[in-house]
Amino acid sequence: MASWFKVYNGVVFEVKGSPLFLIFIASTMTSTIPGISVAGPTPEATLFTPALDVEYLVTGRPLSSNSIPVTPTGIPTPALLSRVALNLLGIPFLVVDAGSYVKPKVPHVRLPSAIVGGDIRSGRALPRGRSRELFEESMTLGLMLARNTNVVIGESMPGGTTTAMAIMEALGYSARGRVSSASPVNPHELKVRVVEEGFRNAGLKPPAGDVFEVVDAVGDPLHISIAGFVVGALRNNSRVILAGGTQMCSVLAILKRLNVRVEGAVSIATTRWIVEDKQSDIRGLLADIAPEVGLIATTIDLGKSKYDGLRAYEQGYVKEGVGAGGLLTLAALKGYDEGEVLKLIEEEYERLMRIGLSRQSVL
Amino acid sequence: MASWFKVYNGVVFEVKGSPLFLIFIASTMTSTIPGISVAGPTPEATLFTPALDVEYLVTGRPLSSNSIPVTPTGIPTPALLSRVALNLLGIPFLVVDAGSYVKPKVPHVRLPSAIVGGDIRSGRALPRGRSRELFEESMTLGLMLARNTNVVIGESMPGGTTTAMAIMEALGYSARGRVSSASPVNPHELKVRVVEEGFRNAGLKPPAGDVFEVVDAVGDPLHISIAGFVVGALRNNSRVILAGGTQMCSVLAILKRLNVRVEGAVSIATTRWIVEDKQSDIRGLLADIAPEVGLIATTIDLGKSKYDGLRAYEQGYVKEGVGAGGLLTLAALKGYDEGEVLKLIEEEYERLMRIGLSRQSVL
Repeated sequence: MASWFKVYNGVVFEVKGSPLFLIFIASTMTSTIPGISVAGPTPEATLFTPALDVEYLVTGRPLSSNSIPVTPTGIPTPALLSRVALNLLGIPFLVVDAGSYVKPKVPHVRLPSAIVGGDIRSGRALPRGRSRELFEESMTLGLMLARNTNVVIGESMPGGTTTAMAIMEALGYSARGRVSSASPVNPHELKVRVVEEGFRNAGLKPPAGDVFEVVDAVGDPLHISIAGFVVGALRNNSRVILAGGTQMCSVLAILKRLNVRVEGAVSIATTRWIVEDKQSDIRGLLADIAPEVGLIATTIDLGKSKYDGLRAYEQGYVKEGVGAGGLLTLAALKGYDEGEVLKLIEEEYERLMRIGLSRQSVL
Repeated sequence: MASWFKVYNGVVFEVKGSPLFLIFIASTMTSTIPGISVAGPTPEATLFTPALDVEYLVTGRPLSSNSIPVTPTGIPTPALLSRVALNLLGIPFLVVDAGSYVKPKVPHVRLPSAIVGGDIRSGRALPRGRSRELFEESMTLGLMLARNTNVVIGESMPGGTTTAMAIMEALGYSARGRVSSASPVNPHELKVRVVEEGFRNAGLKPPAGDVFEVVDAVGDPLHISIAGFVVGALRNNSRVILAGGTQMCSVLAILKRLNVRVEGAVSIATTRWIVEDKQSDIRGLLADIAPEVGLIATTIDLGKSKYDGLRAYEQGYVKEGVGAGGLLTLAALKGYDEGEVLKLIEEEYERLMRIGLSRQSVL
């Protein structure tokens, strides 16, 4: 049986026992800027994506609208892959809402300071001091839930690569042209204009020293909350797998600036579509920010699927999200067969078409 | 080293690995009936107790007021014992709010249908259909979080023995005079009057067949939510320890009426103060409702403490709550020394006095 994962940077990658999967969700108004995000059928619909993703992940169907999230051309959310892998793995999981525009209609932790992030062009993404509150609340949750535990953390927040780029650039890392996109044509120039407008309006000149000032100005509620959780988890002798693409490098940038020791305790698990993407550079970002962090990815091949919506992943659509890469990688590491997983993915796709994937508009 | 737990009914009791602790909280206006509950300095203050209990459990201090919950005579909440045991065990935990009057200022899952329960004298404790919603939402949470996991479930809801008695009586079990109390003088007659008034106003004649109609009429948001979680957990091959006193028998009554198989999968862990209480009868309730369920208790002795507030437990005050009995029993099963735990409890009591336990009023 061929393995269907690849370790990219030589850092040893271990997953012992049955980890806990956490899916952090939030919204940023940045995702409604036309052209920034295809994580929804329209720019406004991207605000519904996080809630619909987790509703579908938990119950198998969207609850806050009639349809699961799709791109403008109808390609389904990566939550489809996540759901298949999660059910196969049978690991416990929990939803953490750091500021979803729509409150998901499934049980979830909502951080007390949860808030929808503002359009970062304003330079005032969050109310002053809010990012520190989110960080601390999420750290508390990490201290509660991750006690000598392996944790896998995924995310759903459209617009996240743009805010992640802003955070990394503000902290002094070169991130322009290096973050990924759910579109095969990455709108790098638009992202750069958005970030630069945010820096201008915030009066922010990189490299900035204070992580929380940076996130309040040009960040979002999601990445700082994930960073907080990681700090809590590491304090309790846990290990964390960040299950996501280039966005997760902004979490590492935050952690490194806060002098958190991540070596041997934090890894990134994602998809081959992210790591081998020509239009972004997760390996370079990781080398610059945290070369001691392991990078692993599932090499699952959807190219042979009979469905356009799944083959599209091989053409650079979607690529990652809702922890899909990390969960599939985990399934590969646990020895599940790629062909069997592919079959389950196709069956789930068929089920979704039956329950009405065709109704694309969520608004 | 002497063991400081006792298995009471001969049913085998196993706890493998590191369980997950869940603390369910809710309020019922029933607790504000003068004389019903001493789980707060005044009847109205009992509405604050659940939030304060979990705030203290998580952070070591109350956040929604200046003082941890105490009885009218200043005896501290059993959360003190829970916190000591929880920190010793180092197990992960999570707060689930099924309808707390005060939203706790720590991260928690709030069930989407969470609601403060009405005074059961009205015969309309919950809006029609709400108990089924709470049950299903909590079952979903159980399906998510408890996947082949051991789970320990505690509770904090003043007035809970009265609503538990109403649920058990309505389902056809004799429960009057058999539920416990946080007071050494159990107000059985008052509880019976309250329950009978509820039955009268609901037009309810035991034994009633429909669990959800019973809970909507004379129940509360807590016990039905715990029952839902248990059902989800058991479906995923998990095992559950109900960490509480006579109240937990109402959870079992709900489960049995729903034909849930609890044998070998559900146990009760509590305190000697509950099991050996002359004014209540957990052993009899269990024998009537679910004799296949194991009963175990910590035999910890607070009688030698130098503090009145702790010695009071040996005089019948407080007895149980916030999962204290289950967590201490678990510590005993895991081999911790009783003397060592006593010392930690006294140290925590001293710390609480320093930070202001003396300010009793939370309103």
